[in-house]
Amino acid sequence: MRLSPAVRLSEYFMPTLKENPSEAEIASHRLMLRAGMVRQASAGIYSWLPMGFRVLKKIEQIVREEQDAAGANEVMMPTIQSADLWRKSGRYDDYGKEMLRITDRHDREMLYGPTNEELITDIFRDGARSYKDVPQMLYHIQWKFRDEVRPRFGVMRGREFYMKDGYSFDLTVEDGIKSYNKMFASYLRTYARMGLKVIPMRADTGPIGGENSHEFIILADTGESEVFCHSDFLGLDPLAEKTDYKADLQPIVDKWTAMYAATEEMHDQARFESEVPEDKRISARGIEVGHIFFFGDKYSAPLGAVVQTSDDKQVPVQMGSYGIGVSRLVGAIIEACHDENGIIWPEAVAPFKVGLINLRTGDDACDKACEDIFAKLQVMGVEVMYDDRSERAGVKFANMDLIGLPWQLVVGPKGLANGVVELKNRKSGEKQELPLDKALELVAG
Amino acid sequence: MRLSPAVRLSEYFMPTLKENPSEAEIASHRLMLRAGMVRQASAGIYSWLPMGFRVLKKIEQIVREEQDAAGANEVMMPTIQSADLWRKSGRYDDYGKEMLRITDRHDREMLYGPTNEELITDIFRDGARSYKDVPQMLYHIQWKFRDEVRPRFGVMRGREFYMKDGYSFDLTVEDGIKSYNKMFASYLRTYARMGLKVIPMRADTGPIGGENSHEFIILADTGESEVFCHSDFLGLDPLAEKTDYKADLQPIVDKWTAMYAATEEMHDQARFESEVPEDKRISARGIEVGHIFFFGDKYSAPLGAVVQTSDDKQVPVQMGSYGIGVSRLVGAIIEACHDENGIIWPEAVAPFKVGLINLRTGDDACDKACEDIFAKLQVMGVEVMYDDRSERAGVKFANMDLIGLPWQLVVGPKGLANGVVELKNRKSGEKQELPLDKALELVAG
Repeated sequence: MRLSPAVRLSEYFMPTLKENPSEAEIASHRLMLRAGMVRQASAGIYSWLPMGFRVLKKIEQIVREEQDAAGANEVMMPTIQSADLWRKSGRYDDYGKEMLRITDRHDREMLYGPTNEELITDIFRDGARSYKDVPQMLYHIQWKFRDEVRPRFGVMRGREFYMKDGYSFDLTVEDGIKSYNKMFASYLRTYARMGLKVIPMRADTGPIGGENSHEFIILADTGESEVFCHSDFLGLDPLAEKTDYKADLQPIVDKWTAMYAATEEMHDQARFESEVPEDKRISARGIEVGHIFFFGDKYSAPLGAVVQTSDDKQVPVQMGSYGIGVSRLVGAIIEACHDENGIIWPEAVAPFKVGLINLRTGDDACDKACEDIFAKLQVMGVEVMYDDRSERAGVKFANMDLIGLPWQLVVGPKGLANGVVELKNRKSGEKQELPLDKALELVAG
Repeated sequence: MRLSPAVRLSEYFMPTLKENPSEAEIASHRLMLRAGMVRQASAGIYSWLPMGFRVLKKIEQIVREEQDAAGANEVMMPTIQSADLWRKSGRYDDYGKEMLRITDRHDREMLYGPTNEELITDIFRDGARSYKDVPQMLYHIQWKFRDEVRPRFGVMRGREFYMKDGYSFDLTVEDGIKSYNKMFASYLRTYARMGLKVIPMRADTGPIGGENSHEFIILADTGESEVFCHSDFLGLDPLAEKTDYKADLQPIVDKWTAMYAATEEMHDQARFESEVPEDKRISARGIEVGHIFFFGDKYSAPLGAVVQTSDDKQVPVQMGSYGIGVSRLVGAIIEACHDENGIIWPEAVAPFKVGLINLRTGDDACDKACEDIFAKLQVMGVEVMYDDRSERAGVKFANMDLIGLPWQLVVGPKGLANGVVELKNRKSGEKQELPLDKALELVAG
């Protein structure tokens, strides 16, 4: 994913707001509107402006890389589906008013896909014949629609949302669990790469159905629901070792499910107290950022997705489905990473790594130094947003804090006279005056 | 855009067809179905399987890079829009049955966007205040829907399609033409990078409206309409020089519009004969792959997208819109690049650069050599599909020709005994036996 590596704020489109928008109830919604990342197009439906778009794409790309690493193949299913398939699975009526139903010009019943179990099962049925065609994992990253009765919390509970949904196809339940475990392990890596602490929790299977299911939850003070877990989870690092997807992954799943962790619906206070020492009990707010299911032949049987076994039997494939809310994650990351001044992006998903502030646009020395730094950062492959506008320093500082780039590089006439620039780390707040070379070295590192 | 760099066919999902599907009337539709690139989900709506998806993404990425190079900022607007904006512009009724109209659970009238002039104008109106906020160019690459009465020709005239649409905002008509010219120049580069010969032709403005408009047409025997032009167009190369978007681009536009070029609707046989010498007259079939418009204040005036001038007047911005059919291009490129055996991908959009064929899977020497080559190509950064299946050589050859990767690297026991592999160029058909190192050097070049 190569995005534009450098922008000048004078040429960018980032309509920031000074005031807190009254419609925004939670931090991420407020900050995304204030930072000019999104605008509401209609209830629960958002347009992503350039900076919001970049974050969305960075998250998407991390998801893609970890899906590919786990051996899943990327496809792209359409948003509009025929109602027929959903009648076969029995979900057309089940789904109720959350499903956006559409009638086309020929009076055919269509719908905007809220999820894709039916369609992917049909694709697999059409393309696979025998046990040689499994195991298979297919995923796509596509817009979906759920007609929420009361959309709110910005992109956290919108109607049109961007989601990775993946599906596994196996010959046996045992193989199906292996695929489930691959996704379990890859999800741990995916969120960790975004700078998030994630905890898998056993979950209800809801309308997708099935026997085995985990939600992936991140902790944030402003989370939507209460969760309970062992504090040792916070010390685990999924990136500490390379994940070998050819190996047995059950030990990883076991390690991450050995300790107590439960959402409100699944919580058992007595078990919590007996299994977790008092000083290790965390009861906190959580945000769901992923959900995985193993549901066997729930869809393959009614939709006829069968393969031939090596001894010539026809069996329905064993399936699982695996979701990551990509647009929701933009909000969730902000909920977990912000302060009173604005967003604090983890570096992996930051729209740019460095914000370059020219304290006196129009001053020859400052302009020249900034142009030089702007060019150097591009050569170094460091993504940079250059605030080259004719605005007061205070406006520029507040703006940079609001949009939360990891580093701020501040160039002013006084510093230049002394041969230094100021480098601020947005997360720690630490500021230091440094020779330019040293500053560039630090931000590149 | 980092896609998975290497796949094994035994683990891929590429359900090829031996027979020509009866529903496919044109080459690209036939070949995309046969090569397992797409499957129809419902009338005019396609699912993109892994190989089709790769091509789609490669085209998308070229479009993105050239848009960014021209100074446009990428956004993402939703697919579902409110009918209200379209009532303000007057197009809600104009659009007729091609617009997919939707009623949500609260009985609000919505629609699936067929294009985005209204929504982007509203976004700009909300975010821009003064002459300092222009010039601005915003684009997005998003799914759109046109409820064609008779969808056909596969992805060439589908109902749900993937499109880049961009929009320019300027203070004056003169500046608006400058933005138009930027897009004109960037479109020439975009198609040339995909290996296409494109010819801009003055066009009708149709339902978008406006005064100035060009279609970008590629020539293909199986094109949808007749076009007439000067054969010297075929000698022009948009990539011969670097395009400087800060400079005046009128000379580029002039150069590409000086010679006669017209679609059937705009064709004037008398002018054609007087302007073009007989031996330079081309009358051929063409496919439209892009369309640009300058339409002034047609949308900004009714939607209130005004900015303040430096002398304190409020004026509606001057706008243009610029479309590239990304999913349509997949079909169009195949129409222009195929033979009786299958697709011949231009390298820049090929799903993989090299197809590695193991002539005797299961033979120790062949397996080992292929694994070695597979790993080496990845280290070299060359995208490779390895046919490691237990299939007859004939099946593998036919398959590779069908899917049209630029290079085929064939490893068999006889060649290995003599220290050589066979390298086939799909386009020229040329085959040569070479030591492995030489072959790798050639495909890397």
